[in-house]
Amino acid sequence: MNPLTDQFTRIMENSSTEDLKILTDYLTNFEKKQQGEFATYLSAGLNMTRVTDEQSSVVSIPNTPFIHNNVDIPHGGILAVLLDTAMGTLANSKCPTGFGAVTTNLTIHYLTVADDETINAEARIIRSGRHTMVLEGNIYQGDGKHIATATGSFFIVPKKTKPVIASEQ
Amino acid sequence: MNPLTDQFTRIMENSSTEDLKILTDYLTNFEKKQQGEFATYLSAGLNMTRVTDEQSSVVSIPNTPFIHNNVDIPHGGILAVLLDTAMGTLANSKCPTGFGAVTTNLTIHYLTVADDETINAEARIIRSGRHTMVLEGNIYQGDGKHIATATGSFFIVPKKTKPVIASEQ
Amino acid sequence: MNPLTDQFTRIMENSSTEDLKILTDYLTNFEKKQQGEFATYLSAGLNMTRVTDEQSSVVSIPNTPFIHNNVDIPHGGILAVLLDTAMGTLANSKCPTGFGAVTTNLTIHYLTVADDETINAEARIIRSGRHTMVLEGNIYQGDGKHIATATGSFFIVPKKTKPVIASEQ
Amino acid sequence: MNPLTDQFTRIMENSSTEDLKILTDYLTNFEKKQQGEFATYLSAGLNMTRVTDEQSSVVSIPNTPFIHNNVDIPHGGILAVLLDTAMGTLANSKCPTGFGAVTTNLTIHYLTVADDETINAEARIIRSGRHTMVLEGNIYQGDGKHIATATGSFFIVPKKTKPVIASEQ
Repeated sequence: MNPLTDQFTRIMENSSTEDLKILTDYLTNFEKKQQGEFATYLSAGLNMTRVTDEQSSVVSIPNTPFIHNNVDIPHGGILAVLLDTAMGTLANSKCPTGFGAVTTNLTIHYLTVADDETINAEARIIRSGRHTMVLEGNIYQGDGKHIATATGSFFIVPKKTKPVIASEQ
Repeated sequence: MNPLTDQFTRIMENSSTEDLKILTDYLTNFEKKQQGEFATYLSAGLNMTRVTDEQSSVVSIPNTPFIHNNVDIPHGGILAVLLDTAMGTLANSKCPTGFGAVTTNLTIHYLTVADDETINAEARIIRSGRHTMVLEGNIYQGDGKHIATATGSFFIVPKKTKPVIASEQ
Repeated sequence: MNPLTDQFTRIMENSSTEDLKILTDYLTNFEKKQQGEFATYLSAGLNMTRVTDEQSSVVSIPNTPFIHNNVDIPHGGILAVLLDTAMGTLANSKCPTGFGAVTTNLTIHYLTVADDETINAEARIIRSGRHTMVLEGNIYQGDGKHIATATGSFFIVPKKTKPVIASEQ
Repeated sequence: MNPLTDQFTRIMENSSTEDLKILTDYLTNFEKKQQGEFATYLSAGLNMTRVTDEQSSVVSIPNTPFIHNNVDIPHGGILAVLLDTAMGTLANSKCPTGFGAVTTNLTIHYLTVADDETINAEARIIRSGRHTMVLEGNIYQGDGKHIATATGSFFIVPKKTKPVIASEQ
């Protein structure tokens, strides 16, 4: 038997109900990434979905123990991942062909604890210039609770052309 | 055969070399969490190590494709996870017994791309008051490259007492 | 003749049209402060007006050379004075009796140059807690141009009782 | 008699000791501006001095009632003026000929109240790129008290050529 399968079997045997849930989610989304449903390991790991239109970009993840810190609430850094992704996705959607937007700075105010089943970050543009953009991002719950507010600056840069080999991997 | 094992076998069969590396790392650290080496699923998922002393706290993760965004560089939000963890760990280590520190805001300047094998965020205290703390966090590479600089405010709150059952899970 | 009057006469004689305009404004507002129309030398010096209601606080100053930097545009720090004053005024208006709000941090994004005759900063509350508040401040021109956006955190503290003598000075 | 002199005489007669001190300072520095010792009305009004070398820029102002808010402590916005000026002066000193640095964002943490006779803000460079710079600014007192810490982003832009007439005014 493959040693990785051995290890997997051992992990399953030692798993709590919560462990099994986390593991199942991880594998399910990992397989979806193999099938092209997620662009990155990170977005698969977080089970991240994105909806972008002309005015806004919304990024959502389930609020599971996978993203909790050691006091069992969503890690502030993971909220930063969501806010930065929402703002970056919208900023990129506004760049001219051949250009992309990179975050130059990010300020987040954490307002209260997210306790809904899903966490949604929504971005909108504050100002769009030729070289820089400023965006706003907010995390609201379905019940209206305002979880976090953020602003970010983005710099518009030419996209790097990757060697053919790299893009084929 | 267990359907989860089935799925795992299928994933392995469809895995690229990179997929297999990511999967192996994930399982190895998941097992370490089961053995008590990581406090949270997130720190296991990121393979996060922490060293805290009187003056500073250093949090490190390997720079693998698991944390990369869709242009193949470390996701800015993951750097936020590191910086927030380093600052929060140090802030908590300074709180009186029964109290903890929660992030109220976080500002990050992204300076350049992290391309080292390991990413280290180091926190130090700027001001420590009775109700609030302000900390600084920086990500430097071994070659001296300054990747990101951050400041954060923390609010000192009484720790919530959890029901016995919850803490036993 | 009083040496201060001597100096004043000399200054007037050496004044450009712009100098005279600045000097006249200064004296006019200084006299208004003596008559109780301004609470501080700074608000008189900037000719600052404030309108606060339940939802917002608006602080306005004329855009004169007095507030310009050495490239003849409004100094970013003066926009910070406006934004901080608007947010602080609104935050204070929401504090219980005997308490006041002090700025703990302030983040400002400068979007474009203010070129209107008046500069107006408007604040609104993002979150109001028992110990802290988070507010947003924006500077818009009459023509819709968005000049600056800011967020700030405020800490709610008991107001210090001043000795009677001090308040009589 | 000139109506402005009339007004000045009236103001003097109605002046408290503090009023007279503020007025004397203002006129003294206004005259120094006329003699070329200050570049702007604002730096004269605040009696601002600057020392810039290769590594840092220090901007100082006296801590007088002119800069106090309505609870008699230095206005947070005026500390922003100092920090922005120190950072901007250093950033500009590093720009190639024909280019200048404009503040794109500024984050300030207010740590404690400035109660020294002089307030000094010191800037240093965190990162200097071709298009952007990130700087740090701090206000420390002579007694070691840390008053405020700030970070700012600057964008490097070509300096506008002014019409000859304007520069002669």
